[in-house]
Amino acid sequence: MADAGSYVGVPLARLLAQKGHDLVLGNAADGLAGELEGLGAAVEVVPDVHNLNKPESSARLVQAALDRFGRIDAATMFSGRIVTGSFLRSTPDDLAAAVRGCIEAPYHFLRAVVPVMVEQRDGQVLVLTSAAGAKPTPNAPLYSAARAGATMLVKNVAAEVASRNVQVNALGTNFMDFPAFRAASGADDPAVLERIVAGVPQRRLGTVEECAAFCTAFLDGTSRFTTGQFVAYAGGWA
Amino acid sequence: MADAGSYVGVPLARLLAQKGHDLVLGNAADGLAGELEGLGAAVEVVPDVHNLNKPESSARLVQAALDRFGRIDAATMFSGRIVTGSFLRSTPDDLAAAVRGCIEAPYHFLRAVVPVMVEQRDGQVLVLTSAAGAKPTPNAPLYSAARAGATMLVKNVAAEVASRNVQVNALGTNFMDFPAFRAASGADDPAVLERIVAGVPQRRLGTVEECAAFCTAFLDGTSRFTTGQFVAYAGGWA
Repeated sequence: MADAGSYVGVPLARLLAQKGHDLVLGNAADGLAGELEGLGAAVEVVPDVHNLNKPESSARLVQAALDRFGRIDAATMFSGRIVTGSFLRSTPDDLAAAVRGCIEAPYHFLRAVVPVMVEQRDGQVLVLTSAAGAKPTPNAPLYSAARAGATMLVKNVAAEVASRNVQVNALGTNFMDFPAFRAASGADDPAVLERIVAGVPQRRLGTVEECAAFCTAFLDGTSRFTTGQFVAYAGGWA
Repeated sequence: MADAGSYVGVPLARLLAQKGHDLVLGNAADGLAGELEGLGAAVEVVPDVHNLNKPESSARLVQAALDRFGRIDAATMFSGRIVTGSFLRSTPDDLAAAVRGCIEAPYHFLRAVVPVMVEQRDGQVLVLTSAAGAKPTPNAPLYSAARAGATMLVKNVAAEVASRNVQVNALGTNFMDFPAFRAASGADDPAVLERIVAGVPQRRLGTVEECAAFCTAFLDGTSRFTTGQFVAYAGGWA
């Protein structure tokens, strides 16, 4: 797991540990490794891999997994650099930032993880992208476009390795209730939150706990016959 | 659960019972109810509701659930009438059969179940359709078209009730290893099976057990923030 310090990472690590999986955690939250070991999991923490735009971050995660466990059953990453603002006011630098964070980061992760799984003839990958990649997104056109690219990258990688018993899927979130979303959206202000959820068909934000529960279906080894799928996890918005 | 006698129904009923859910089962397989009660579930069996083309079948299932448990947390159905043959040789009767089995049956089920959930302001529905609804399907054009209609019906119903805390999703299977598929496809013949799996990117058939495990993510109440989604469960074929 590329980032066990925020977002869906912490609850997902807990659920996988409860199901009996050992874990390699990038940037684990304080105290998390000990908690998971208390649940019976063997845990390898890899510090300083937060920036997945760098290929060496994913390479270090993969190497740590192979050194400790000799194989990788499943892998997941949360990617994305939010770039907002209209197309008409955008700059090439904005585009480059969106591409780096939303396409290059999952590319590097997949490029590091998938060959190991192909060699094993066994593996599952779930890339968390954004529901913004599923439809034009007001005030985030470059981000939406880059996310769409990542989704299609996942589908292409899935097709390429499907016959090797490696599944690659994408989950596109939006409107998740976690600190970075609240900060970026202003949702800590109740009036702003009300305006935001008015645009969410389910009329609320999602929790990282329920998202983690959903993610396990793509990662825990109980279900292997779907690949190249994109699911929006965004309260019906996409 | 509209059909607990075949396909994904039996393993899904087992998984839900293991997770602590009580169950209403249409057409339960012999011995299944007793087995689930042994797992601690309260089980209501509704016989003679196999034909979901009839509105009264779904109505009876819903009434049985309300009579026994007073509410419906989640509901699932497996629909579909396979209609094969080229478009050029097809008849209006073929179309009518595909529409009845693939569109009207889920319509009746949704029409019976969803109002109860809207009233509760709580509920999850998963409709099993077919991956054939996601792309043109050789030798099954009417079936593919009707399946696509069912998928879009699910998305429309989901949008209509999203704000009432009711989630409606669709899972489209294909190449699942169960008796009806083996009979319809000729897969009991090893040479035929070999030709079939050559057309499946994952190069195998799916098991009903792994499909059931996947279904639970949409039904067991652990994850509620996604609706109106279609996921192909078909070994990468769609």
